[in-house]
Amino acid sequence: MTMIFGADYYPEQWTPADYDEDIRLMKDMGLSSVRLAEFAWALMEPRPGKYDFSFFERIIDKLGEEGISVILGTPTATFPPWLAKKYPDIHQERNGIRRTIGTRRQACFASANYRRASEKIVTAMAKKFGKHPNVIAWQIDNELGHEGSDVDHSDTSLKAFRVWLKKKYKTIGEVNRRWGASFWGIVYSGFDEIPMPGRHVQSGFNPSMMLDFYRFHSDTVLDYVRMQTKILRKHSPGRELTTNLYPSPFLPILDMAALARELDYMAWDNYPVWGEMEEPYPHPLVSYMHEYVRGLKDQSFTVMEQICGFQGHEVLGYLPEPGQTALWTKHAIAHGANSIYYFRFRTARFGQEQLCYGLLDHDKEPTKRSIELSRAIDDIQKVADDFIDEALPAEAVVVHDIDNARNLKIQPISKGLRFSPVPYVDVGYDVEIGTWFSGLNILNVNAHVRPSSEVDLSEYKVAFLPLYWIADPEFVHHVEAFVRNGGVLVLGYRAGLKDTDGWMCDTQVPGLFTELAGVRVRQFESVGEQKVKLKFRALPGSCSKICEIVEPITAEVVARYTDRRKFYRGAPAITRNSYGHGAVYYVGTALTPFSNMLFYRRVLREAGVPFRFFGPQIERVQRKGREQDYEILMNHSGKAKFAGLRRLQPYETRITPKPRGTFG
Amino acid sequence: MTMIFGADYYPEQWTPADYDEDIRLMKDMGLSSVRLAEFAWALMEPRPGKYDFSFFERIIDKLGEEGISVILGTPTATFPPWLAKKYPDIHQERNGIRRTIGTRRQACFASANYRRASEKIVTAMAKKFGKHPNVIAWQIDNELGHEGSDVDHSDTSLKAFRVWLKKKYKTIGEVNRRWGASFWGIVYSGFDEIPMPGRHVQSGFNPSMMLDFYRFHSDTVLDYVRMQTKILRKHSPGRELTTNLYPSPFLPILDMAALARELDYMAWDNYPVWGEMEEPYPHPLVSYMHEYVRGLKDQSFTVMEQICGFQGHEVLGYLPEPGQTALWTKHAIAHGANSIYYFRFRTARFGQEQLCYGLLDHDKEPTKRSIELSRAIDDIQKVADDFIDEALPAEAVVVHDIDNARNLKIQPISKGLRFSPVPYVDVGYDVEIGTWFSGLNILNVNAHVRPSSEVDLSEYKVAFLPLYWIADPEFVHHVEAFVRNGGVLVLGYRAGLKDTDGWMCDTQVPGLFTELAGVRVRQFESVGEQKVKLKFRALPGSCSKICEIVEPITAEVVARYTDRRKFYRGAPAITRNSYGHGAVYYVGTALTPFSNMLFYRRVLREAGVPFRFFGPQIERVQRKGREQDYEILMNHSGKAKFAGLRRLQPYETRITPKPRGTFG
Amino acid sequence: MTMIFGADYYPEQWTPADYDEDIRLMKDMGLSSVRLAEFAWALMEPRPGKYDFSFFERIIDKLGEEGISVILGTPTATFPPWLAKKYPDIHQERNGIRRTIGTRRQACFASANYRRASEKIVTAMAKKFGKHPNVIAWQIDNELGHEGSDVDHSDTSLKAFRVWLKKKYKTIGEVNRRWGASFWGIVYSGFDEIPMPGRHVQSGFNPSMMLDFYRFHSDTVLDYVRMQTKILRKHSPGRELTTNLYPSPFLPILDMAALARELDYMAWDNYPVWGEMEEPYPHPLVSYMHEYVRGLKDQSFTVMEQICGFQGHEVLGYLPEPGQTALWTKHAIAHGANSIYYFRFRTARFGQEQLCYGLLDHDKEPTKRSIELSRAIDDIQKVADDFIDEALPAEAVVVHDIDNARNLKIQPISKGLRFSPVPYVDVGYDVEIGTWFSGLNILNVNAHVRPSSEVDLSEYKVAFLPLYWIADPEFVHHVEAFVRNGGVLVLGYRAGLKDTDGWMCDTQVPGLFTELAGVRVRQFESVGEQKVKLKFRALPGSCSKICEIVEPITAEVVARYTDRRKFYRGAPAITRNSYGHGAVYYVGTALTPFSNMLFYRRVLREAGVPFRFFGPQIERVQRKGREQDYEILMNHSGKAKFAGLRRLQPYETRITPKPRGTFG
Repeated sequence: MTMIFGADYYPEQWTPADYDEDIRLMKDMGLSSVRLAEFAWALMEPRPGKYDFSFFERIIDKLGEEGISVILGTPTATFPPWLAKKYPDIHQERNGIRRTIGTRRQACFASANYRRASEKIVTAMAKKFGKHPNVIAWQIDNELGHEGSDVDHSDTSLKAFRVWLKKKYKTIGEVNRRWGASFWGIVYSGFDEIPMPGRHVQSGFNPSMMLDFYRFHSDTVLDYVRMQTKILRKHSPGRELTTNLYPSPFLPILDMAALARELDYMAWDNYPVWGEMEEPYPHPLVSYMHEYVRGLKDQSFTVMEQICGFQGHEVLGYLPEPGQTALWTKHAIAHGANSIYYFRFRTARFGQEQLCYGLLDHDKEPTKRSIELSRAIDDIQKVADDFIDEALPAEAVVVHDIDNARNLKIQPISKGLRFSPVPYVDVGYDVEIGTWFSGLNILNVNAHVRPSSEVDLSEYKVAFLPLYWIADPEFVHHVEAFVRNGGVLVLGYRAGLKDTDGWMCDTQVPGLFTELAGVRVRQFESVGEQKVKLKFRALPGSCSKICEIVEPITAEVVARYTDRRKFYRGAPAITRNSYGHGAVYYVGTALTPFSNMLFYRRVLREAGVPFRFFGPQIERVQRKGREQDYEILMNHSGKAKFAGLRRLQPYETRITPKPRGTFG
Repeated sequence: MTMIFGADYYPEQWTPADYDEDIRLMKDMGLSSVRLAEFAWALMEPRPGKYDFSFFERIIDKLGEEGISVILGTPTATFPPWLAKKYPDIHQERNGIRRTIGTRRQACFASANYRRASEKIVTAMAKKFGKHPNVIAWQIDNELGHEGSDVDHSDTSLKAFRVWLKKKYKTIGEVNRRWGASFWGIVYSGFDEIPMPGRHVQSGFNPSMMLDFYRFHSDTVLDYVRMQTKILRKHSPGRELTTNLYPSPFLPILDMAALARELDYMAWDNYPVWGEMEEPYPHPLVSYMHEYVRGLKDQSFTVMEQICGFQGHEVLGYLPEPGQTALWTKHAIAHGANSIYYFRFRTARFGQEQLCYGLLDHDKEPTKRSIELSRAIDDIQKVADDFIDEALPAEAVVVHDIDNARNLKIQPISKGLRFSPVPYVDVGYDVEIGTWFSGLNILNVNAHVRPSSEVDLSEYKVAFLPLYWIADPEFVHHVEAFVRNGGVLVLGYRAGLKDTDGWMCDTQVPGLFTELAGVRVRQFESVGEQKVKLKFRALPGSCSKICEIVEPITAEVVARYTDRRKFYRGAPAITRNSYGHGAVYYVGTALTPFSNMLFYRRVLREAGVPFRFFGPQIERVQRKGREQDYEILMNHSGKAKFAGLRRLQPYETRITPKPRGTFG
Repeated sequence: MTMIFGADYYPEQWTPADYDEDIRLMKDMGLSSVRLAEFAWALMEPRPGKYDFSFFERIIDKLGEEGISVILGTPTATFPPWLAKKYPDIHQERNGIRRTIGTRRQACFASANYRRASEKIVTAMAKKFGKHPNVIAWQIDNELGHEGSDVDHSDTSLKAFRVWLKKKYKTIGEVNRRWGASFWGIVYSGFDEIPMPGRHVQSGFNPSMMLDFYRFHSDTVLDYVRMQTKILRKHSPGRELTTNLYPSPFLPILDMAALARELDYMAWDNYPVWGEMEEPYPHPLVSYMHEYVRGLKDQSFTVMEQICGFQGHEVLGYLPEPGQTALWTKHAIAHGANSIYYFRFRTARFGQEQLCYGLLDHDKEPTKRSIELSRAIDDIQKVADDFIDEALPAEAVVVHDIDNARNLKIQPISKGLRFSPVPYVDVGYDVEIGTWFSGLNILNVNAHVRPSSEVDLSEYKVAFLPLYWIADPEFVHHVEAFVRNGGVLVLGYRAGLKDTDGWMCDTQVPGLFTELAGVRVRQFESVGEQKVKLKFRALPGSCSKICEIVEPITAEVVARYTDRRKFYRGAPAITRNSYGHGAVYYVGTALTPFSNMLFYRRVLREAGVPFRFFGPQIERVQRKGREQDYEILMNHSGKAKFAGLRRLQPYETRITPKPRGTFG
């Protein structure tokens, strides 16, 4: 396949006088595809059941004539005001706030009325455009679950939750048993007594209930997506289906791996900086996000919205430096993107995204960034084509587990694991997983991120399993086999704490992993943001968040606490246990970055995985192409930096072909 | 006219045994007027339609006998509980909280029921007291819009908003066109689909809609005031009408200039320190507030509530130092006050203002401050009479624009421009305008603050136009003529960004000002609170909030960024362009105070406006009297300070007569 | 009596297979009592009116057979879901949030339906178990008022409030008069116009109304408790009644002294560290809490929940050090506990308290803390038995006043007196009283904390009366007699400010205390958290929160402000006045700890009360036993410390018998 560059285009926000010029400008920049219509329901169905596809038909035709292909969005992320008037039950609610017309992501996925209305518009749209030669793919809805819409406290949602519970548990007695109804005497007599686990004054709701509440939401969204995929597969044969996650790691409720199974490829929206942020995310976190999305289907993906300017709704922040947006494009490609759509072609003159600067400003003059990206597209197009659809080689994997992501929202145990920079973003789990990934990234080890439900550990030499508190016995068996057969496992603190009902195990941590890890843990402290000293061999280091007092059974000690303020100074913090042909490192704490690097070096050496540190702002990714292999070096800094002997300019990406077999 | 000193008096909170002594104490202090009754609706109409004015009649008579005149407040800032019971729709709502009986400012201005009830009480009161010889003026309502009552999320408000929209736009199609309904597909089919742009979970409402929502509230309040002025003008001929703004700059929604057109003079409530504040506002900000109110009608004004003690509802803070309350009185007079009413005569023993210390405490002994103010009144009375009603001479003006004040609430662009010290106070606009004014104040330049709708720029040598993002072409023409004819214009960053519908212009900043300023701006950064280095000629300085990369077309560069952390170091930040007989300084950033002083000195020199810096705590105001001119020097510090060779005692005000023609 | 050690036991959360082993483990640890059933309503009344006590009967029998006695909790702190369905009016509401099924403390105490349902279950339970030989006492409800349930904004609550007002004031005219209805013209025509003083946008409700609103809640809870005590006294003769306060000082609304009058002994739940706290409360604050509870009835008390592990709902923090939980047990005993129940026996595997670690973990292996506590029980059992039911000797008393606790929530005056670490905890009053107590505690002076409604000052040599702003004339007379007869009174700032209706007195502070204190205060500053310098004799010190400018009339000056930043430097801050045979210290500010120690030393010397400072982490308590007297030395530090010449190990408690008459 050929690398596709495109843009998110909103012709409905411009005038007929603009289209020809817009298309010419796109082509000049090297763009050959657009995404259209994902918020255009009211334009296509101006009155109930009265469809008018003429506008988009003209646009799609015109684009086709000029060789610009189209991904169509199903327009269900907002809905027409008339629909809201007709069906008051289609609104989501969050913490007592009804999501009304006028913003977006208001729809209650559990509403039968919303579902029927969605079916109709998607069917009509699919019938109309499904076989249009210029339509290459469909994006289902837009940023499912974004803006906190993955949790809905509406009455409709509550009723659906009760139905879901009935389906799962059959009897109310079974609900009581599995949730532990004897606790605080909350014994339900019927499903209609189940309350909404939403706002509360102080003490919250039963954690097993919360886990189910999140699973219910995930299932409901999946079911809603399946409704759409079914229609599209029927009426739009041969077109690929996808959806755009935003920012995928930041939604710890929806089962993205299950979602991925419904789709042909994954897409996501990549905003390394947004709103009032004063600087972009650290690059390893963005690498993590790419790898997370890549790992969902273990295949190349699309960046459906790639920041090209700088954005915010009410407030702006960091202005990307010259070369930086080009680097972000290449960074995405290095990590598995095979299509990139820039958000957005022109900057809206009106509406909530007036400050979301696109490739062009509110006028049509070339911008510094449109020129920069046009050059970047030119640069990379050819070399990228060789490798973008080849597998990204990796000997290391970090395992992501959706139930544990949900559980951490409910019960983070340490405030160091609670991370909620804005309301409705509660991403301690992903930040911590991303931190574990970052340790590999910074050592320039190609690493995958895979869902526990999908991963085949036998493909890897070393596996990292952090925050695996809820332990599924089946996956534990898989892990055991991996180690037995020679794999190196790095197991994080509190592993094996709970069962899949959210109950604490009646054995000590690490529960089902005890024999594998050769340790047990009977005491721990949640140290929050405190930095606690430890010694990794002779080298001093530090850790935070959780400090377990690890008691070796068969394991040997790798690191010990040394902090004078802590009574458990001298106690083991990290251990290593030989098991079968492999080994298990048990990490009873959260290492700070430098300590983590020391530790990972030891682990990687044992696992036989090569690594190389070029400094904190240089990243190396290795790709295999059809023709050649490639070393991709990226300087994520605004200053010139050395990667070994090679000097990289600010924000430079250097792709060097390598003889086959140099790595991987 | 003679300077009037008075007090806000609540005889209803005391007993008949108190009145004679109260009046004697007032007279001893030099007070000759009181404001009465602005919260006394329930006392005057104890049951629906049953009026009882006997209490206030006796008080007004008694005061009259003692030579103490009366300003009556219409009592509509709270209403009787029986009215609330009768008309449940008269309550405002804010973010889901209904404003009930028991506090104040609960009334929905859009409620027909409230309006009718207000008409009745105001009519009855006007008939009763309108021609009373001792009633000299009326205060309409009290602190209109205070405590967030300038925004109302009630259903009644929503319905009225829809009516207002219909009146403005005629058709729903026009609403859709002007708001940009294609954005997120929010296309309304009818006015009844318009939602309340209130609480929302994450993404907000359309900014053009928000602008209209704020304009609607402003119009509604104005209309409500007009209803009262009409009644009062009919039944109380010859009495002047006013209202008390609180604190006027802190209400960026109501069009105070339009309000001023309905009234005979303006009044405001001056609290340089309040509640838990640990120190008073910087004096230039208070000077700004005075000048803002003075500028609304370009005439002398009343301070209807002048802090004399220290105040708060639940918590107190700073205790004014000896001499400081006297200074605040004189400061008000220097900036245009011709009447001052102290809040309040005695301190309430009960109710929410138990901690609002007035001239007297809860007893009747003289207080340090009553003695201090009595002396101050004595001091200033005679000299003030010569100048209080003469124009305040100024060659510089800072322009205030209400639509831009509203817009900045919606979209401040930089978090450095968002200022919300307590909920429902959101005054980034006024703080920034006040900061621009402060630069003049600190250089002891008499300066006006005028609304864009009222100002005649030709009266000034130099005009400052900050935050003029929404540009009205008519006003731009006025500005152009001013510069063409020799004026010096200082134009702030992001000028000309939007049109009056709130759309981004399809040209680059500064849009309509491009030729005048001789620059364009294609890139900028919102740096928030960061301090960014720049060089103003050879002198190092700093700026914050917004950093535009200014590209001169015909302009010359005045200052450049020099910050090593910024890729745009070296780029122009401030420019100067000759235009017609005048010049335009374009300021692409927000200068910090010291840098601003350097810059203003250059501007003032060019404009031929004299200035003099006496240190950060000395202020000089120049006034023209009927007989003589006056230099007023004020020491805003608790330490003795020099103003040139003159030594001012702590908090001293020194008024020196000057020969005619010394200044101005 | 013999010291009782027990545990809070939840057999309903375990299986029949567990009970024998559980009981054996209890006995091994030295436990001889359990508390049962306080959340088990739904288990005992699974359907309306259908009782099933068989489970608890078997458990109580089995425990009895093994010599383990039972305290039964009435289960009204949560209720069965079916009850919620049946009576929608039984839910509390707080700030617009309805307290639903699924958490706890949801019941509206004012609901007649809830009251009737409670009567039924309590009666049935009392009939069933009231005479069971193994039931020794009843705990009424659980943590009454905890989690903000001491304030209820539901409609049911509002209606009951109106009834309460009618009962108190008879006529609406009297309500208006006593609340000061003329303020803001809030004159009620009928009781049905009284609004809920709950959520509001900005200005709050009348402080006199708020005071009544809190008194109403207190009365309502008391009445609810009385309903239960009546039933229990009837059906369970000879069993003692108690309830568990949590953490008692942290509920400044309920009149705990009045509650205590209804009960046979008091109990409370002692968690010196909880949730994400990074370290425990300072030990003097915990001593204060113990003494507060002890002082309610001036008798020994029970710790009904004693932390033994570490706890939190979602997040954990500090891990107690070895020896620290044992110290907490002994600390409680030193301050008057005669029974201690550990919370909880085993750690719940499910439910909101999964992270509330008890004596045992989720398994049944002995834990470090169960072993430590078992040893501690062994250690202390015998010696404690000699003194636990003897009076705790004290010559000093700190007076607590519930109306002032309420008033400080409404109007703290200084932000230094506002303390709200989490929502619905608003404990500035108790933290300040605790700070005054701490000054004695740190000097190792045995001191009582007594409610103003109960205390007989003649029992003491020195009395501390802080924050006594609302002054009850009757209590002032009592204080006057105390001083006249030779007592030393330490009176805090703002004393005598208000009357019992919440009105400001029409005299200056200290109002009714003026002659006693020999001072008056006409000016003060709320300095919040600022540290203001003063000099206590020649020694420099500092103070904060409030700085009164104290004017001596007959008093002499003890300390003066010396802070250069304050205009009142040189003014008196603390004075001493001779009165009758005694003396009054008036403290016009809040001293910081070191200054406070200097001051207290002077006061104690004058009062003839011996003191001794052993350093900030050593505490000495003196007890009189039946046989001997005891000196109890406690090292609250994790390091060895000296107490004079005696070296205490980390967290050591050393109890030394003393000859009779050594102290007290």
